[in-house]
Amino acid sequence: MELLNKLNWRYATKAMNGQTVEQEKLDNILEAISLSPTSSGLQPFEVLVITNQEIKEKIKPVSWNQSVVTDCSHLLVFAAWDTYTEDRINRMFDLVNDVRGFKNEGWENYRQMLLGTYPQRDAEENFNHAAKQAYIAFSQAIAAAAFEGVDCTPLEGFDPEAVDEILGLREKGLRSCVMLPIGYRDADNDWLVNLKKVRKPKDELVTVID
Amino acid sequence: MELLNKLNWRYATKAMNGQTVEQEKLDNILEAISLSPTSSGLQPFEVLVITNQEIKEKIKPVSWNQSVVTDCSHLLVFAAWDTYTEDRINRMFDLVNDVRGFKNEGWENYRQMLLGTYPQRDAEENFNHAAKQAYIAFSQAIAAAAFEGVDCTPLEGFDPEAVDEILGLREKGLRSCVMLPIGYRDADNDWLVNLKKVRKPKDELVTVID
Repeated sequence: MELLNKLNWRYATKAMNGQTVEQEKLDNILEAISLSPTSSGLQPFEVLVITNQEIKEKIKPVSWNQSVVTDCSHLLVFAAWDTYTEDRINRMFDLVNDVRGFKNEGWENYRQMLLGTYPQRDAEENFNHAAKQAYIAFSQAIAAAAFEGVDCTPLEGFDPEAVDEILGLREKGLRSCVMLPIGYRDADNDWLVNLKKVRKPKDELVTVID
Repeated sequence: MELLNKLNWRYATKAMNGQTVEQEKLDNILEAISLSPTSSGLQPFEVLVITNQEIKEKIKPVSWNQSVVTDCSHLLVFAAWDTYTEDRINRMFDLVNDVRGFKNEGWENYRQMLLGTYPQRDAEENFNHAAKQAYIAFSQAIAAAAFEGVDCTPLEGFDPEAVDEILGLREKGLRSCVMLPIGYRDADNDWLVNLKKVRKPKDELVTVID
């Protein structure tokens, strides 16, 4: 299966060569992010696409000085909603009604159920839930990059509060949760490029209950 | 791009017809899960693959009685580690050394850093982190199913504690975090099958900083 080939091809690139990723490839990666499923279809996150070198230089020291942060082509920062609000929920439900051209009672009841549950919950719990949806999209972005022959580095090793500060995310009701530098490998300087992919045995991963 | 076609084809299937998913297709979906990247390569989760109808019937009432839970072919339950322990971390680092056939100082230093950080952290924080890794794999499983022409239903709407109890997960140091029934759509009884996929406008999803 083509997806398996691509997942086998990809690896967490540790050195990039600064080459720019073509706009069409970037657009396809962003489209995969957009098409990713999310809980109740809320898409509770945004993606910052950073090419500005000064900003990347600011983010690097709060990301354990990982070279891919500055040597990548585009630094994708996934920022989840800091909480669920009535306004945010209504916006998505209204959009669905607009696009589909009708109101549905079941759907409206579901909206009311979410409005009666999510906004009242602890903001941290909501952020954690929203971040998980961002991870679904993050995962599709990784696959999409591989389909485009673009390297990437799934990157959790950074100080989210510092990144929020640099990008002014908190004021927008967002919190950074994971980053994805994309670009092209610098194979001569990447210690990981030729090492074998290691996965635990299937019987430690999967249990069949039949 | 082929992945985008597949992501456009898929939808959160609301009714399935009970038809069995072929073993080869299931194997490929599980392989995509296995190949998914995870933080530090720890793969901090397991996947329960349930075909046992009695167990599915027990899970249905704690999953808002969603019919796909019993009408699916295989119910995949993603269960994340309840916390990170020294033993769990060492197992994966040892496996990496075994497979690659050498010890590397940088890698061993990184192991020590994780051992000095993760096991001491609050179990809830660790579980949340592990669950996010499970979501990365969950997302690849959704894509892989689409590549196989298999329908699925990303499913968070269930009582995780009840599912843990039914499957005896807590005793194994696991906690259910998300489920994925896979199978084949029952188009005649699925209210969602013909409705338009709705996504927020790109300019509300993506911000370019150049």
